[in-house]
Amino acid sequence: MEGPASPAPAPGALPYYVAFSQLLGLTVVAMTGAWLGMYRGGIAWESALQFNVHPLCMVIGLVFLQGDALLVYRVFRNEAKRTTKVLHGLLHVFAFVIALVGLVAVFEHHRKKGYADLYSLHSWCGILVFALFFAQWLVGFSFFLFPGASFSLRSRYRPQHVFFGAAIFLLSVATALLGLKEALLFELGTKYSTFEPEGVLANVLGLLLAAFATVVLYILTRADWKRPLQAEEQALSMDFKTLTEGDSPSSQ
Amino acid sequence: MEGPASPAPAPGALPYYVAFSQLLGLTVVAMTGAWLGMYRGGIAWESALQFNVHPLCMVIGLVFLQGDALLVYRVFRNEAKRTTKVLHGLLHVFAFVIALVGLVAVFEHHRKKGYADLYSLHSWCGILVFALFFAQWLVGFSFFLFPGASFSLRSRYRPQHVFFGAAIFLLSVATALLGLKEALLFELGTKYSTFEPEGVLANVLGLLLAAFATVVLYILTRADWKRPLQAEEQALSMDFKTLTEGDSPSSQ
Repeated sequence: MEGPASPAPAPGALPYYVAFSQLLGLTVVAMTGAWLGMYRGGIAWESALQFNVHPLCMVIGLVFLQGDALLVYRVFRNEAKRTTKVLHGLLHVFAFVIALVGLVAVFEHHRKKGYADLYSLHSWCGILVFALFFAQWLVGFSFFLFPGASFSLRSRYRPQHVFFGAAIFLLSVATALLGLKEALLFELGTKYSTFEPEGVLANVLGLLLAAFATVVLYILTRADWKRPLQAEEQALSMDFKTLTEGDSPSSQ
Repeated sequence: MEGPASPAPAPGALPYYVAFSQLLGLTVVAMTGAWLGMYRGGIAWESALQFNVHPLCMVIGLVFLQGDALLVYRVFRNEAKRTTKVLHGLLHVFAFVIALVGLVAVFEHHRKKGYADLYSLHSWCGILVFALFFAQWLVGFSFFLFPGASFSLRSRYRPQHVFFGAAIFLLSVATALLGLKEALLFELGTKYSTFEPEGVLANVLGLLLAAFATVVLYILTRADWKRPLQAEEQALSMDFKTLTEGDSPSSQ
């Protein structure tokens, strides 16, 4: 029953959940584009439409790509660990670069219009997400991809990395919801309460953002969907266990 | 190393994290009260201040008490399982009743003022949270406290219950953030961008809400802090394993 020699088959329902997450994620990106195109005049860099680059980039980078970066260890279950790690790191780089464009867009827009920066809860959460995302990437890179860190150090840091990765993703989604709400209240004002089509569309977009986060989190946390250890990792892990069996267990 | 006979000692750092979560949770409740008292005229049922009952009740019920209800299995590690379950269920009942008062307050306030109901993303998320919370409580009660469900059914439902419990808690906190933002933008309007004291206080409150959710989630997900099986549960679990060893493992 427990033969780890050949590639372990993916758990039955996992591919359907992954497909559903991608459907939700792409719908969220498409709906953000549709909202900006239909109700906000579309997107352009050198005009008053520059602001609209911000929500689109943030949803693509910090919601969709970041979510997918977390899923690579579930999707590529039987690839070499290193390949999966590199993909995980690279998806985060793409997410970061796209989010950076979105960040520049909103600061430039504020500067041109003479608006104040960083006064709202959305902006505070956003800057926090950005800083945490960057720090997590740097620490993750130096522990897991840079060849220096020991196996023991990696094993001890891994659970923290996984938890904070999920937490930063969730905070990103919460920040997106706050931004969406802000954009609606600024623009629609009291018309929001008359069930304007834009308000309803944006509310549905908000619920879909929450649904995407929920499905990604569900896939990540299902114990029986965790990535199985590959043969060579298993051997390494066993060696390590033998080596450290004498270690003080209260050092944690 | 693995003696399960006497009560297992709590993992070293757990009490400090629990204390920190309580400090954060109580600060969030106190700050919500301070915000409403200092900037919104305080709280009363039979007046225009009725609205203010809403944020306070929601933060006490759906954030603080719900968060604490999730922590009881980590805090009461060596109590009988049934006692802990009853406490978990009861804290959810308190949370629900307090949240219900908060819900009635906002609907009555809307009715008196002639405001529209349920048009905003905050209200949509809030109603969703409320419905999911109630459904989760009913299903949880009938599986885990009502004596009907079999051990096998409970084991299979438990991971779903845990995941959706955490998800509903997180959605509650996200909804609180949306509500806070809404209250700020409605009341402060453009003054929000001049770093009014109320805006800064509310932003800090928002960050503390997110911090409380993060610490609760951290305590819940740390693998080595999970509640150990008590002696009688272990025996039961082993009996069950022996009984079902012949079961089809692919039925999942």
